[in-house]
This record gives sequence, structure tokens and C-alpha cells, in this order.
Amino acid sequence: MSEFVKTAQSAKRKETRSEERAREADHPSSLVAAFGADKPLHLDCGVDLAPFQIAYQTYGQLNADQSNAILICHALTGDQHVANIHPVTGKPGWWQTLVGPGKPVDTERYFVICSNAVGGCMGSTGPSSTNPATGKPWGLDFPVITIPDMVRAQAMLLDHLGIHKLFAVVGGSMGGMQVLQWAAAYPERVFSALAVACSTRHSAQNIAFHELGRQAVMADPDWRGGRYFDEGTHPRRGLGVARMAAHITYLSDAALHRKFGRRLQDRAVPTFSFDADFEVESYLRHQGSSFVERFDANSYLYLTRAMDYFDVAADHNGVLAEAYRGSTTRFCLVSFTSDWLFPTSESRDVVHALNATSARVSFAEIATDKGHDAFLLEEPEFFAISRAFLESGAHAHGLTSVVR
Amino acid sequence: MSEFVKTAQSAKRKETRSEERAREADHPSSLVAAFGADKPLHLDCGVDLAPFQIAYQTYGQLNADQSNAILICHALTGDQHVANIHPVTGKPGWWQTLVGPGKPVDTERYFVICSNAVGGCMGSTGPSSTNPATGKPWGLDFPVITIPDMVRAQAMLLDHLGIHKLFAVVGGSMGGMQVLQWAAAYPERVFSALAVACSTRHSAQNIAFHELGRQAVMADPDWRGGRYFDEGTHPRRGLGVARMAAHITYLSDAALHRKFGRRLQDRAVPTFSFDADFEVESYLRHQGSSFVERFDANSYLYLTRAMDYFDVAADHNGVLAEAYRGSTTRFCLVSFTSDWLFPTSESRDVVHALNATSARVSFAEIATDKGHDAFLLEEPEFFAISRAFLESGAHAHGLTSVVR
Repeated sequence: MSEFVKTAQSAKRKETRSEERAREADHPSSLVAAFGADKPLHLDCGVDLAPFQIAYQTYGQLNADQSNAILICHALTGDQHVANIHPVTGKPGWWQTLVGPGKPVDTERYFVICSNAVGGCMGSTGPSSTNPATGKPWGLDFPVITIPDMVRAQAMLLDHLGIHKLFAVVGGSMGGMQVLQWAAAYPERVFSALAVACSTRHSAQNIAFHELGRQAVMADPDWRGGRYFDEGTHPRRGLGVARMAAHITYLSDAALHRKFGRRLQDRAVPTFSFDADFEVESYLRHQGSSFVERFDANSYLYLTRAMDYFDVAADHNGVLAEAYRGSTTRFCLVSFTSDWLFPTSESRDVVHALNATSARVSFAEIATDKGHDAFLLEEPEFFAISRAFLESGAHAHGLTSVVR
Repeated sequence: MSEFVKTAQSAKRKETRSEERAREADHPSSLVAAFGADKPLHLDCGVDLAPFQIAYQTYGQLNADQSNAILICHALTGDQHVANIHPVTGKPGWWQTLVGPGKPVDTERYFVICSNAVGGCMGSTGPSSTNPATGKPWGLDFPVITIPDMVRAQAMLLDHLGIHKLFAVVGGSMGGMQVLQWAAAYPERVFSALAVACSTRHSAQNIAFHELGRQAVMADPDWRGGRYFDEGTHPRRGLGVARMAAHITYLSDAALHRKFGRRLQDRAVPTFSFDADFEVESYLRHQGSSFVERFDANSYLYLTRAMDYFDVAADHNGVLAEAYRGSTTRFCLVSFTSDWLFPTSESRDVVHALNATSARVSFAEIATDKGHDAFLLEEPEFFAISRAFLESGAHAHGLTSVVR
């Protein structure tokens, strides 16, 4: 019998964690910036979202002239808990390798902000938040959001915090898309931009993988047309399948081979059954079942959709360089050789466009077999490049000493 | 609303085609070789399958000394209808580009046989066939089968037809795996072997994609633990999702980009919804929904499992060359540059093993952006190589003239 079926059977036992997650949607274990009816978020789809809230974490201290703020943008299934224990999973922050005291994004030097993306499920307004008009979760009544919408909400958060200009915006994958959108939409507010393992537009193959994930969620009868909150269900199996598919794309063939090869799971000979005979099967089932405990299925639909729609050049007659014309932002792009979700060629396209506008840009392709996931893992060369890029920027920006 | 939901709603309308498919399981529109209790199929899992039947098609005429027989082995979702109109879909045979009068596998010269793999759903015994012990479809009571089991069944079919030695065995993908297994298991029965876009063992990434597909099927409540026949359901949505995932792996990133890019489907601006805005989404949904009309979900589980278990070297202490020691078979391996499911490196590994045993082997890597699917598409260089390989083999085998 499949482990997903087992997971479904043990759903009751894990209810506590799901309840915790549901509570985070409206009452997050984070700081919250609430925007009332007078401060709507203007969405690309034409809707004005109001009221809404942004949940965020900060690390370090803002200096007197507010020149040391770094905004971290999270990836598809990340959140604001970049460098602290996660309130639902109890696990370390998702980028604690990069962000913290003495780390490349040094919280003893910089004031670091990370907010949950609008459309997310960890306290910023999204489909699992309560719709004030109905008193129930938004579900699919929530308007479709875009990467520019996420960035617009972050800009409102910065206004709320009284920070006009960011020393740096940093992010990988969907977070990197936000970095590139920040630099296009608010060039005067971004001193430097570090965009990792990303692109200015989603490829057809990436749209295809996202659509596969959405169809897996929607195919689950427990999705209930997005109204699972009302009915006390959650499309665990569909969301688990979506996560399995996504997880394969985050790793490289070489990484899967190195980690698992064709090794059997706790057995010497195959069982000739549909049990998880191979270690890689067991691993994927675990990735699927653990994900559904911490993530909302509708948020998964909305955030994947936002990535699919992303296309910076489209707003500039298809000419990417136009989006960055005259920019004084210092750019650094980083890609990984074995990343087939956002291959190096896509970072190079961005670099070429920036070169065409005479923007200041550096670029590094890092040799690794870890695939797209490399940006979240122990990659010394990536850390060294990030540190050097921020340090040279800090020098140019007049941030010469440690804050405290 | 998703097109899968629409598909489910229109399930009744399409019932006729599903009924046709169900009938094919026991009473195929093909020739049938029936094996009784005295001629069991010895399966790798230890079970003796009896009675069982193999459904097959033939094209052309067997010559007097039975030296012009070519066995075509089909891929995962293929069947015996290689060069005739498919009885369920009404579409042309799946390899009509390669097989037919005057084609590289010339049916005016060769006697071509193609059988449905054991475990399939088009008339060879498989999970949708009636289990004589119960009078109901086998479902998950059907024993797990392997690629060597498929080949063993084909060998019994050839015995039944009175053909001892094949002039050639030809196949791509799972069909190519069978070709390589034929040459390893019955070297004296294989004069030449043309193995396309395949490998002697399934990689961890490929196992991962298959496991994803199986979990998608099993997550669908309409799967009913494999007993959907009893209950009048079919896991359309789960199988559709599995097919979508597989289909992405059959194409290359470049092919998806060329075919669809980021083009919108019949609209000028995005709808800001979960409709199939992009052409690639619409295409994938169609691939999923059309597949479930012609294929059995349990067969999909069994055949993917067989591919996962495949590992020729494993039976030879991990030394692939040992599997082909002393072979006199003439081999030709073909790979495609953009095939990331069975990349060229895997074909090269086979070529190196064959070289190590001094086997006669030629190898061609064909430049194309069509991905794994290239073996089924219009690829003139592939056709030319196949024709040349078979013609030179025919000359060596004494097949100098056209049969009729």
C-alpha cells in the first residue's frame, strides 16, 4: 500500500500541525504590517486588495541613516523564517547557511528583512487568510497575484518601516525573480541586487511542471474546488504528488544518482511489489508527505501561477534591456551548472540585457552537481561570492564598520 | 475550472471508447497465441503465470527458411499496433514512420512481428485481463513482471510461430530495453539488435519520475486500491496527471520552447485565473485526458515498475560486459542529443561494455531538439541509419532479394 495512503490514514494524528499552520495564516508568529482600506495593494489583475497584511521577520539593527537594510525574498515554498526556528516545523531557518551573525549576509552588520509573499500561507494575506467580506478563508476567491504584486507589497512594507532605499535585495529562484523585478520597478530604491538561480521569465518547461503540480492538486477530490477549509479536508495526496514532481526538478540527475543510485530501501532483494523498493522512492514519498503538513494547497496554486506569469521583458515591448535602462543598481547573478530548472543560459540572457544597458553586473556560474537546490545548500563558492559582492557594495555605499 | 474536471464530467460520453479498451484486454483485435496450464510463463518474481496469452500483429511474409523475421518491441504506452490503424483510437500505427512497405523496416522484405507486452492492456495477459481463478480482472493480484519476463513471453511466441532465430530485434525506450535483454538472454536467437533511446538500467531520476506517476494514480480515490473494474470507476484524473508528468520528460526544454514558448492559448492577455492560459498547459491537459481513454491505469503501474527493476548488469555481478560475453549479435545503438530521459551517456555505457567483449557494435548520436520523443518522430538521419544497419545485416545474413 502506498505511503500516501498511510499518510492519509494518519492524518488525524498530525492534525495539530495542520491547525498550527492554519492559525499562522491570520495570526502569524511574526511581526505584522497591517494595511487598511485606505492603503490597498494595487494588483496586476486590476483588483485593489484591502485590507491586507504582510508578515515579516527582521534580524540585526537598522543603522542611523537607514543605509544597511537588506531584503531577502523567499522562494516558492519558503517564507519569512529565513534565519530562525520555523514556528510550524521546528526546523532551522531555510537560509541559515547564508544569513546570520558572521555569515555572508551578516546580521551583525546589516538589518535583514524577510516578508512572507502576498499569496503565501504564513501570515501575509493569501488564499488561506480570512476574507473579511465572508469571515471564511479566501480560497479561490482570492485574486490571482503576480511577482510584481509581491514586490509592490514589499515596497509598501518598506514604506511602513520608513526605509526608502535598500542596500541590497537578495533571493534565489522565485526570490531571485522578485530581486530582478525590484530592480526593474524601483531602480532608485535598490543599491545592489543579488539574484540567484533565477530568470526574468518562466520557460515553457517550467510552466509545464507547474501546471502538472496544479492539476495534481485540483485532481484531488479533497481539494473541493478550493473550499477544503469549509469542509475540513486538505488535498494532501494531490499536493504531495505536486511536491514530488517539483522536488525531482530541484535536484539534478547526478545528485539523485549520487544520493540514491539504484539502492534498495532496507532490503537486499526487490519485493516485486509497489512498495518503495528503491531509496529514491522512499525519499520522494517523504518529501511529499512532510510538505503537506506545512503548506497550503491553494497558496501552492497561486504562487506557481505568479511564477508562470512572470516576464519582465513583456512590459517593455519584449526588450529586456529596456526594463533596466539607466539603472545604477549593482547586479550580481549566480547560476549553478547542474540547475536544469533555471539553467545558466537564462542567467546569461539577463547578464547580456544588463550589459546592453551598461549596467554594473557581475556573474558567476558555480560548478556543482546539486541542481537547483544548490542555492539552499552548503556551497562555499556561492557563499564567498555573496560575501564579496555585499562587502564591495558596502564599501561603495559607505557601510564601513560593524553596526554594534 | 480545470479541464480534468471537465473530462470527468464528460466521462459518460466517452464510455464507449473505455468499453472498447476493456474488451481488448481479453478479446483483442489482433492475432492471439494462447498458452495453457502446461506452458506457464516463468516470472522473475517466482510465480508461474498460466494460462496466459500474447496478442500480436504481423506484417509481410515469412520467407521459406524463416530468416527474415524482425521483432519490434514497443515502449511503455505503445502496443502491437505498430503499423496499422489502432482499433481503439483510430490513429495510425505508432511506428508507421519506420515500419511499412519501402520503409527502413521494409514489410515487403521482412516479416515483422510486434506483440503486446505481458502486463499490457491490449490483449496480452495483464492486470486488466480476466483472472481465470476469479472471473474478474486481475487488478493488483497480477504478479509484478519484469523486462526479462516480457522477453521470455516473446520467445514463447516465437516458438509458437516456429521461428527460432530473429534476423533483428528493434525497439526504442522500454522497447530498446527489451532489445538489450533479448541479446543478453538469447544471444543465439538474435542476429542483429537495434536499440534506440534506451539503457540497460533505469536511472534514479527515471525511477523518481515513474514513482511520481504511480503515486498520482494511487492517490486518485477512483483507483480503489486497483479494483476500479469492480466498482465501475477508472482513476482518470490520477492517470492523466501521471501522463502529463511523463510527457514533459519525453520532450526537451528546447522542443517545448519551440512548440509553445510562452504563447497564450486563444487569447491576447492573461486571464489571471487557473484556466489553461498558456498553450503548453492546454497541450499537456489534452495529453493527459486523451491518454486515459486508451490505457489501463494498473498496466501503467506494472509496466513502469518493470522498467524501474531493469538492470542487465545486476544479474552478472554488476559487470555489464559479462552479459554479452561471446555474443555474435550485430548491435546498433542510437541516441538523441536532447533526450534527457535516456541521455547519450547511457547508450555510450552499453557501447563500451559491448566493446569490452569485442562485440560487433555501431553507435550513432543524432542531433535533434525533439527530446526522447524523437525516436517516434520524423528523423531522417535515424531512418537512414536504421535502413543501412538492417540492409548491411540482411546482406551478411544472406537476405539479398525482396520476398515477393
